[in-house]
Amino acid sequence: MQHGLLVIATLGCGIVHAQKTSEREIDKKVDDLLSKMSIEEKVGQMTQVTLDVIMEDNSLVDINNKKLKEAIINKNVGSILNVKGHAYSMETWHKIQKRIQEVATKETPNNIPILYGIDAIHGANYIEGSTLFPHNIGMAASRNPELVKQASKITAIETRASGIRWNFDPVLGLGRQPLWSRFEETFGEDVHLVTEMGTAAIKGYEEDGLEGPTAVASCMKHYLGYSLPASGKDRTPAYIPEYTLREYLLPPFKSAVEAGTSTVMINSGEINGVPVHASKYLLTDLLRGELGFEGVAVSDWEDVIRLHTRHRVADTPKEAVRLAVEAGLDMSMVPYDYSFYNLLLELVKEGAISENRIDESVRRIIKLKYKLGLFDNPYPEKAALAKVDEKKSKAVALNAARETLTLLKNEKSVLPLSKDTKVLLAGPAANNLTSLHSSWSYVWQGKDDSQYPKSTATIKEALEDKLGKANVMSSAQRDYDNAANFDASQLKKDAAKADYIVLCLGEDAYAETPGNIDDLALDSRQLALAEAAIETGKPVILVLVEGRPRVISSIEKGIPGILLAYRPSTMGAQAIAEVLTGDYNPNGTLPYSYPKHTGDLVKYDHKYTEGVREDEPNTYSDGAYRPQWTFGYGLSYTTFQFSNLKSDKAAFSAGEKLSLTVTVKNSGEKAGKVAVELYSKDLYASITPNFKRLRKFKKIELAAGASKQVSFTISPEDLAFINAQGKSVTEPGVFNFVVQDQEVSVVYKESQQN
Amino acid sequence: MQHGLLVIATLGCGIVHAQKTSEREIDKKVDDLLSKMSIEEKVGQMTQVTLDVIMEDNSLVDINNKKLKEAIINKNVGSILNVKGHAYSMETWHKIQKRIQEVATKETPNNIPILYGIDAIHGANYIEGSTLFPHNIGMAASRNPELVKQASKITAIETRASGIRWNFDPVLGLGRQPLWSRFEETFGEDVHLVTEMGTAAIKGYEEDGLEGPTAVASCMKHYLGYSLPASGKDRTPAYIPEYTLREYLLPPFKSAVEAGTSTVMINSGEINGVPVHASKYLLTDLLRGELGFEGVAVSDWEDVIRLHTRHRVADTPKEAVRLAVEAGLDMSMVPYDYSFYNLLLELVKEGAISENRIDESVRRIIKLKYKLGLFDNPYPEKAALAKVDEKKSKAVALNAARETLTLLKNEKSVLPLSKDTKVLLAGPAANNLTSLHSSWSYVWQGKDDSQYPKSTATIKEALEDKLGKANVMSSAQRDYDNAANFDASQLKKDAAKADYIVLCLGEDAYAETPGNIDDLALDSRQLALAEAAIETGKPVILVLVEGRPRVISSIEKGIPGILLAYRPSTMGAQAIAEVLTGDYNPNGTLPYSYPKHTGDLVKYDHKYTEGVREDEPNTYSDGAYRPQWTFGYGLSYTTFQFSNLKSDKAAFSAGEKLSLTVTVKNSGEKAGKVAVELYSKDLYASITPNFKRLRKFKKIELAAGASKQVSFTISPEDLAFINAQGKSVTEPGVFNFVVQDQEVSVVYKESQQN
Repeated sequence: MQHGLLVIATLGCGIVHAQKTSEREIDKKVDDLLSKMSIEEKVGQMTQVTLDVIMEDNSLVDINNKKLKEAIINKNVGSILNVKGHAYSMETWHKIQKRIQEVATKETPNNIPILYGIDAIHGANYIEGSTLFPHNIGMAASRNPELVKQASKITAIETRASGIRWNFDPVLGLGRQPLWSRFEETFGEDVHLVTEMGTAAIKGYEEDGLEGPTAVASCMKHYLGYSLPASGKDRTPAYIPEYTLREYLLPPFKSAVEAGTSTVMINSGEINGVPVHASKYLLTDLLRGELGFEGVAVSDWEDVIRLHTRHRVADTPKEAVRLAVEAGLDMSMVPYDYSFYNLLLELVKEGAISENRIDESVRRIIKLKYKLGLFDNPYPEKAALAKVDEKKSKAVALNAARETLTLLKNEKSVLPLSKDTKVLLAGPAANNLTSLHSSWSYVWQGKDDSQYPKSTATIKEALEDKLGKANVMSSAQRDYDNAANFDASQLKKDAAKADYIVLCLGEDAYAETPGNIDDLALDSRQLALAEAAIETGKPVILVLVEGRPRVISSIEKGIPGILLAYRPSTMGAQAIAEVLTGDYNPNGTLPYSYPKHTGDLVKYDHKYTEGVREDEPNTYSDGAYRPQWTFGYGLSYTTFQFSNLKSDKAAFSAGEKLSLTVTVKNSGEKAGKVAVELYSKDLYASITPNFKRLRKFKKIELAAGASKQVSFTISPEDLAFINAQGKSVTEPGVFNFVVQDQEVSVVYKESQQN
Repeated sequence: MQHGLLVIATLGCGIVHAQKTSEREIDKKVDDLLSKMSIEEKVGQMTQVTLDVIMEDNSLVDINNKKLKEAIINKNVGSILNVKGHAYSMETWHKIQKRIQEVATKETPNNIPILYGIDAIHGANYIEGSTLFPHNIGMAASRNPELVKQASKITAIETRASGIRWNFDPVLGLGRQPLWSRFEETFGEDVHLVTEMGTAAIKGYEEDGLEGPTAVASCMKHYLGYSLPASGKDRTPAYIPEYTLREYLLPPFKSAVEAGTSTVMINSGEINGVPVHASKYLLTDLLRGELGFEGVAVSDWEDVIRLHTRHRVADTPKEAVRLAVEAGLDMSMVPYDYSFYNLLLELVKEGAISENRIDESVRRIIKLKYKLGLFDNPYPEKAALAKVDEKKSKAVALNAARETLTLLKNEKSVLPLSKDTKVLLAGPAANNLTSLHSSWSYVWQGKDDSQYPKSTATIKEALEDKLGKANVMSSAQRDYDNAANFDASQLKKDAAKADYIVLCLGEDAYAETPGNIDDLALDSRQLALAEAAIETGKPVILVLVEGRPRVISSIEKGIPGILLAYRPSTMGAQAIAEVLTGDYNPNGTLPYSYPKHTGDLVKYDHKYTEGVREDEPNTYSDGAYRPQWTFGYGLSYTTFQFSNLKSDKAAFSAGEKLSLTVTVKNSGEKAGKVAVELYSKDLYASITPNFKRLRKFKKIELAAGASKQVSFTISPEDLAFINAQGKSVTEPGVFNFVVQDQEVSVVYKESQQN
């Protein structure tokens, strides 16, 4: 035993030593280079412009050499991002990257390569023809971090193959504001779920090692609090107490730093009247000091100047630059001009910002470029291109889409449909690609039908493939905005000949601010179409294709079958058809509380005071949590029974671990997967405890009739919360652990500060 | 000049000296009494029970002597509150008060009188037949603090006449969460408006001097943050950053303390996971330390034990008592049992709470009893009863109702109606008393029709009085829940014979938790009735009787005339009829942003980042503030022109004052009142500045054609905000002042900490 420990310790030391040496070598190179750089070159490294700046005005793909040299040689720009217009072919990417790096590494004083960044959010969405994975909100429903990791690894491979080594992903904000247009980019409302999924994404991007041909630098974003705008509108003020910041929003970023993410993107918004781009507390004290993050902090789009123009905490553009840099910004995504470069240079020359401060940021940027191997070979790598495997990408995308789909209602087992059924397919999402993919799909807004690969199927095409063309009636157009898609009288006429109506409703594609809405209710045209469908008397199957939960309480009662598809992307239609026809047994699990009313957004992890009824002061009732569907909800075509939840200890202490086991049985007649979720309830605490909290989850597969014992390990840290002093503590007391209908009590014995 | 100053100083000193002597005399009496009291008597003083506890089980008005003695003699109870069931006659109140005080002052060791407390929220609403004033939300629309003061003075007189000397009023929470069921009890969304109105109420209650027969002890409530529950449901968790707490929620309480309020009631909710009843920071450090409050802090209903049963920060009832008392509670509104008394006694005897801590609270309570003259005469005072003047109460209530009514829409001058018009009166509020009065009206929920004075008019009765019975058709029943009130086909039939439809919609009465809702939209039955009315083609006048803004965006376009009545109470129907027929020219001014969508609750004083558009980064646009009607909106039957806004200085410094004047002209043909509102815009600040802030307002009256110059004085403190260090500061920079379409810029020159 002692011998074993010794070996591990030695190995541990060895690894640490090796890493440190390598880090030290890079640090030395960075210092050497830094010592040769002019202040202009340094400030240039902190400047990032968008591709448009160096392109021909009248072309989406051709570089203008004069502009290129202005950027890289005259303005010493260190980083470029984005596409112009839409996704490029690999060839175009290679051409662009090659030309940029040629100038950077051959025509500048120190030959520093450019760090190119891209938003590859759900697959390599800016590469022509690429396979896109379900958006994060669906990936969270899969409760399968392995799928997230696989998808981000494929994204890394394809992105690197295009010559780009920095991806502005993953989003680590919590999806607790369902009005927000970027809700679909989040992993849902739960802290632990977002943390697990976010960490898996970062591992997928980086764990192969940044120097290699299959990794990219990831970017945890948007630090911090971006996902909770008070009004629900994108990039608007948030009001977040320190408690919420630390208890809910910070943990995914803390874990991301521990998982080794290389960069961070800053929240465009303001918290409690302080723009995050101007917050030294958030960008330096908390991020660097407490979390120990050593990577590059990049602004979001145009956000430095906006400290002056929008937030108005800087009375001049120059003061905006000073505030951001002093707060802790390393790189400004300017992105259209050289104002940041010019003003920062002035500030340093005036002594308003020290060169030491500049060196701090430039050191981080140059170091990342070394780590990414850009000094060895700044060009697109053949080894990376060889790793691209479209067949594998599609297989992972299909698996992912399947595991995201969440069956919300199946009254009298209306689903699955038998294959000889005659179906009327209706609704604006029925024959539409853009709503399946939404944001960041070949174009920013995802709304350009012409950019999608010809091979991508709509729900109509996929369902025809399953049931036969003759069995699928549809008047649905490919264009979401076509009035015919909302024609209730046509629908009623067509329904006479059908056994079922499959109604595909939801949201068309959107990204960021253009996706702002004022109410969660599904739009009235779609609700009217649903009412018409219900009135036919034919059983209605509703397929919801949407990035955020749109309220359907006014129509839900009349609809026996409801399948939530989120944004399933490239292989989504096929997965939907498989689930509708029973070729795949659904196992998606809601990653958020699906609201019944826009004015009732209580979350599953609410406090007791949200739930206990006035007239029953002593109940543990969850009465005020009344969403349409609860967090963790999701049906299967089989049934699962849970039994015998037990703990290996009745009580435990600091330093000890608890082992909890539960038996899960597939008591139905079909093989299936199920997410086994372990929740804890802290009965009393110095800060009002949550009604329950998700602590662990495991996705398992069981053949019909099969059983499995599932184990979870719980440490005292897993039961911690942020106390009134802002510290993470585990307090002694009774904890109840819950898996479905199983509950067991365990006593934790001593106070522990984490 | 110097001589004048000297005189003032001398007078000042004299007054201070006299007061201090008086305070000192009381303090001496308190100390003397305290020294004689047993610990049981002390703990009893901190205990408040509800009237039920001492009443016969089967009677609403008869005291059970055994229970009375159990409370006052055995349990040493120091305070009683509330009614049992419904409002009492003066005689019943006198009988109850007399009996209670007899036992307290004759059968206890130290003859300490009982402090009786009541919720007289909008008039003496627990006295049979009393006149009720509009709820605060309407009073705020009057922009007339004098009316608030008059109403609270009358409430004080009537309450005192009943023998009660403590009123749990006013509410000082900001109305910024329109889903909240107590929104109608607030003075709206603006800090300055709530502060001015709240201070006026406190002066009305207390400025005559507590010893006299026309004052009661007021109670600022609910300290702090009660009005902002995250989910909108009553008594549920709030998440409020320190910035919001200090910038928006604290100022009305700060001013109330300065205005001399005697007591404070604690918020039942929790803020950032800390129940306010357990928050030493809020109840001691901030309230006592920073605000310097010296009065009595009473819990809200049952809230001490709820630290254990609901909030779960105390794992036993005893720990709940300990937490609350150590946090700073003086008196527990227990109210049904003696658990607080028993447990607190145990805690003191065990040494868990010191007798010194108990003495602190008891001293405050006894001192208040002395100040209220209870030791001189604890019984109902004849001098108070002589001051009751029903005619005057009604006159003030009518004036108040008139000035609250807010005309929101008057397309093609559809209003006022000429007196020979034939009107179809419809909708559930048309012939209904309870919706006009709502919460705290003779019964807690305001919903018992039988309790209203027979003389109180409904809208139907008042309109018949104006137009003649023959001109008012109506099938409206007195019962809000009667289906006939929503009968669209009947309405369509009746409309044929009418020139106009006056549709009275809104909310029936509710108070506190039973008023919880999930969506702001007006209920679907009422929306359907409105659609039917619009379909008739007859012009529709909508009278909205509601405590909070219910969304009507789906019907608003079809309705040419809209009058918002809030909860106008006793004289409300008459005032509504006067406005509809032109006998009174409306001048109410919205005290909140009337939302167009439940999911879009941006306030008028939002940050620039809420409003500036993505594609116009340099605009001052207010584009994202798109309510149905803006804060400060309200029409008149005449028109007002504003001109020549100017400042007496182009720049000013700390210690200086600014004088701003504007000319207001009644450019129409009817005399009228108008609220002149002065807003400031801080162009740049270290905390993102608000788009604008209301700084001063004045209600003026102008004859047709008349003009008036209105002046405002602005101090640097008026332009202050809470900075990142939590301090109130005025920062140098440009401030724009705005009155309607007039705007003037002034420079403030030096930093000032307030």
